[in-house]
Amino acid sequence: MNVNDLLAKLHANLPAENTGVVASYIPELAHVDPTKFGVHAVTVDQREFCFGDSDEGFSIQSIAKVLSLTMAYQRENQKLWKRVDVEPSGTPFNSLIQLEQDKGIPRNPMINAGALVVCDVLLDYLAEPRKDLLAFVHSLSGDDSIGVNERVAASERETSARNRALIEFMRSFGNIRNDTERILDFYCSLCAIEMTCSQLSRTFLFLANQGVSPFTGERIVSTSMTKRLNAIMQLCGLYDEAGEFAFRVGLPGKSGVGGGIVALRPRDYCVAVWSPPLNYKGNSHFGMAFLEGFTSEVGDSIY
Amino acid sequence: MNVNDLLAKLHANLPAENTGVVASYIPELAHVDPTKFGVHAVTVDQREFCFGDSDEGFSIQSIAKVLSLTMAYQRENQKLWKRVDVEPSGTPFNSLIQLEQDKGIPRNPMINAGALVVCDVLLDYLAEPRKDLLAFVHSLSGDDSIGVNERVAASERETSARNRALIEFMRSFGNIRNDTERILDFYCSLCAIEMTCSQLSRTFLFLANQGVSPFTGERIVSTSMTKRLNAIMQLCGLYDEAGEFAFRVGLPGKSGVGGGIVALRPRDYCVAVWSPPLNYKGNSHFGMAFLEGFTSEVGDSIY
Amino acid sequence: MNVNDLLAKLHANLPAENTGVVASYIPELAHVDPTKFGVHAVTVDQREFCFGDSDEGFSIQSIAKVLSLTMAYQRENQKLWKRVDVEPSGTPFNSLIQLEQDKGIPRNPMINAGALVVCDVLLDYLAEPRKDLLAFVHSLSGDDSIGVNERVAASERETSARNRALIEFMRSFGNIRNDTERILDFYCSLCAIEMTCSQLSRTFLFLANQGVSPFTGERIVSTSMTKRLNAIMQLCGLYDEAGEFAFRVGLPGKSGVGGGIVALRPRDYCVAVWSPPLNYKGNSHFGMAFLEGFTSEVGDSIY
Amino acid sequence: MNVNDLLAKLHANLPAENTGVVASYIPELAHVDPTKFGVHAVTVDQREFCFGDSDEGFSIQSIAKVLSLTMAYQRENQKLWKRVDVEPSGTPFNSLIQLEQDKGIPRNPMINAGALVVCDVLLDYLAEPRKDLLAFVHSLSGDDSIGVNERVAASERETSARNRALIEFMRSFGNIRNDTERILDFYCSLCAIEMTCSQLSRTFLFLANQGVSPFTGERIVSTSMTKRLNAIMQLCGLYDEAGEFAFRVGLPGKSGVGGGIVALRPRDYCVAVWSPPLNYKGNSHFGMAFLEGFTSEVGDSIY
Repeated sequence: MNVNDLLAKLHANLPAENTGVVASYIPELAHVDPTKFGVHAVTVDQREFCFGDSDEGFSIQSIAKVLSLTMAYQRENQKLWKRVDVEPSGTPFNSLIQLEQDKGIPRNPMINAGALVVCDVLLDYLAEPRKDLLAFVHSLSGDDSIGVNERVAASERETSARNRALIEFMRSFGNIRNDTERILDFYCSLCAIEMTCSQLSRTFLFLANQGVSPFTGERIVSTSMTKRLNAIMQLCGLYDEAGEFAFRVGLPGKSGVGGGIVALRPRDYCVAVWSPPLNYKGNSHFGMAFLEGFTSEVGDSIY
Repeated sequence: MNVNDLLAKLHANLPAENTGVVASYIPELAHVDPTKFGVHAVTVDQREFCFGDSDEGFSIQSIAKVLSLTMAYQRENQKLWKRVDVEPSGTPFNSLIQLEQDKGIPRNPMINAGALVVCDVLLDYLAEPRKDLLAFVHSLSGDDSIGVNERVAASERETSARNRALIEFMRSFGNIRNDTERILDFYCSLCAIEMTCSQLSRTFLFLANQGVSPFTGERIVSTSMTKRLNAIMQLCGLYDEAGEFAFRVGLPGKSGVGGGIVALRPRDYCVAVWSPPLNYKGNSHFGMAFLEGFTSEVGDSIY
Repeated sequence: MNVNDLLAKLHANLPAENTGVVASYIPELAHVDPTKFGVHAVTVDQREFCFGDSDEGFSIQSIAKVLSLTMAYQRENQKLWKRVDVEPSGTPFNSLIQLEQDKGIPRNPMINAGALVVCDVLLDYLAEPRKDLLAFVHSLSGDDSIGVNERVAASERETSARNRALIEFMRSFGNIRNDTERILDFYCSLCAIEMTCSQLSRTFLFLANQGVSPFTGERIVSTSMTKRLNAIMQLCGLYDEAGEFAFRVGLPGKSGVGGGIVALRPRDYCVAVWSPPLNYKGNSHFGMAFLEGFTSEVGDSIY
Repeated sequence: MNVNDLLAKLHANLPAENTGVVASYIPELAHVDPTKFGVHAVTVDQREFCFGDSDEGFSIQSIAKVLSLTMAYQRENQKLWKRVDVEPSGTPFNSLIQLEQDKGIPRNPMINAGALVVCDVLLDYLAEPRKDLLAFVHSLSGDDSIGVNERVAASERETSARNRALIEFMRSFGNIRNDTERILDFYCSLCAIEMTCSQLSRTFLFLANQGVSPFTGERIVSTSMTKRLNAIMQLCGLYDEAGEFAFRVGLPGKSGVGGGIVALRPRDYCVAVWSPPLNYKGNSHFGMAFLEGFTSEVGDSIY
């Protein structure tokens, strides 16, 4: 069976009913069609496979945190880890108490507090933050059409009170330097980036290729930094379900409340799947199930 | 350079001073010589390499939790995860509050609460728990001389108040079935198992070999279960330093307060290192540093 | 209007429907008739007033914690506060985390952890704990018929896992001395004391009379100790509803999950009310409402 | 002995050394002379007594929270308690986690979160918030010279990150309506009010007089509201030391990090004491000790 057929078969094997629920915390996300399903895989030698709505754009949301982290890591290297740690955070419930215990240093760059610090770091380096971010994404994916969904960004911006609280709380510990509203603007643009499965898997492929873009040959980050980014995704990429994902799928990955999940097998491939309804831990219900089947069939997990 | 020479070189590269501190919560552990250092690596095709005090026995402590987990997983399969979860636990600080929030289901089998539940599970299956446990260890390592240090076990037994509290607390949620003192007896024997680096790396080699003992060809657990055990070690094996270990070393591993760490690269090798002084997170200070150098030099991390 | 008529009127003014729920965590408590209602007040000059089922016995439960505290305070004086603090505990949710933060010293003697420490203290002094406790209660109330309900005590004893966990946890911090099962036996007897409203208000009257029994003239505790016991009741006597009680009723008081509440106005009177259905914070729903009306009508709160 | 002599004697009985430390979180507070000590008492029939630096102004800080609460309570009556609760908060450590658990409703109006909500409420009513606040204070004290220390207010304003975080966090739960910076301006003015002991005891005397100003005969709040304000002070007025204060002093009171404490005996008197060095719980070390002696000598506590 070829890989495209396998993708179709794995999709056919999903349960008839999807018990997940589409994210509704911002109106723009709630409008998405819950029956959408797409998947796209690309290997480090640039073979590509797809199924379903793999060329339809969706809001990548928290998946983008890996991209801003990569940009900050490029610029700060090890210095970055003085301002954000690399440990799993336990339950979401603990986030604020941990931030207090840890004196304003977020547990990792994948939780909101950590991603906000990463944005704060980048504002010290980028002349035109949103433009520079998109330029980076364009260079990774080889696709200049990727952009920010302005309605989603505006919608995020209007429900920023909690993120504003996190910023001010970290500022009280001296871990924030830039203006709160500038940080929030940048952060909301980041989360509102829209990609197709195809664009998403291509964008992340450098992390499966030891830090080098397979399309351009350009080195994005060092081999060692690549390993560390993958380790962070593995331990912190799926919110409070990182263990379950490592357990069932066994690859470094990152999810977003838009229903996307991207995962990668080092030296082998990157795969992006999209299905909007989320399980109660905030990850795509069918995305998780599909990737579990995929790694069972297509190839080994990293373990 | 051959691997034995590499091990010596990596040891020579460690800092002159060890800022770690030997565990002292039980007297028996406090007596160990802090300058001891041993390492032993074994590949799935049974080549072996070593350096230093690799044939001196030490208390493997929490490392043994992987062995009892394997025994329980063999017997219960997926049913086991109804009684213990597979998520990282965040800070130690959160353990009790999380146990309350999670209705007596421990976050993972590597924290004390989870290992106690695993012992409780095994007491339902094993006729002679301690004897059956050692028989299992002997079959894995091919070495019948491995045993329990009775003074350490007795010493652990005398400082069990907190573990007894955990058992009673989980019992109040219906997640404990056996007599408290029987569970503690078994648990303290488990933690007091003594091994050399050489015995330890051989014992864990089946986890680098897709669940099959390379020495006997016997299947211990399925390929799928092996992956899951490795995923649990990766995410939960180094206490509150799992992220740092994934980040720096990049392999599934497990540490103990006796100063041992065992780590493995799937389909490749298993390595055990021992150096008693612990960093402030409870992991061998030189063990961590040595393994970081080792994976940089010897071979890739899994990322 | 005389006081007996006032009590009847206040009862008539209660809402038609009682939205509270009878405690069911032990079967013996669940069997009680939810429509029971009794109240008894006694002044320091020994005038008595009553209404309803004021001569029917009920399980006083946590109310008894004040009696064991008084006995321990008599024997240890200020030394007692090294083992238990006198601060409100915030939400029930925090109890375990606070116990950890506070190194095994309970926040106050009215929460379970604190009451268990008080029992542990008393076991060092009492030759026959249960008998000595009842003798103390008999001397306070002038009524030798007060006893322990054996079925309730046995029922409590069977659901002791959580209290056992608290004892072991505090033992791990060095704050428990006696055998766990002896402490639990004594504690369960204490909680299973049965009194009528009339017996209860008479038993607590010494706290409204500066520490002297108005019936016998015997000094139970000093004036200063009396103030402190009243202060503890005021701040910690109504579980997580101490503020609401101070706010609405304005007197030192103590409640139990059997549906009883006792409250007192220093130098004036003591009042006991009983109505089994509890509000969601575990206090008698009608008991709270009745006492609010009572202090509005009969006399001033202490504020 | 007359009362003035008694105040002098009680002062003479204080320990030779003050182990407290002057608050330093804002520079303006750190500059105060630690040897200052003043006390002023005033009875409901307007007899006045004093000792030491009772006519020297100091920053009343959190003591002012009772004044803003009174203003908000006048305007909102019971409706106010939908936005802020009246329960003690346990340890400071729990504040954020409790705010999360309680969906943005602060535990009481004496902690920062609660006082910020009270300021938010007042901004809906007051045309010129700071001016209206001072007018209220002038009417209570009969002294138009009381004002805001502008340097202290500016200093507070510059270290507002944590309070800003609290506001945004509560806003995310829908419990804040006004602009964040307006709330902070008002809050910082409030905390920066400066009074002498004499002014402070006179300002709070209405709370000892059932809600009526003894100076003008004007009713400030109803008798019932007065009781409730006193109950809130009793249970929540001394930060995490409310139990200790009730236990040792036995009166409703409120402290501030400027070293002031005001306490009152209903229907009797109000007393203000000032000594800048604070104990580790943030209350005036000598202030607590002095008031303990005072209530022992001068008159009974309310218990």
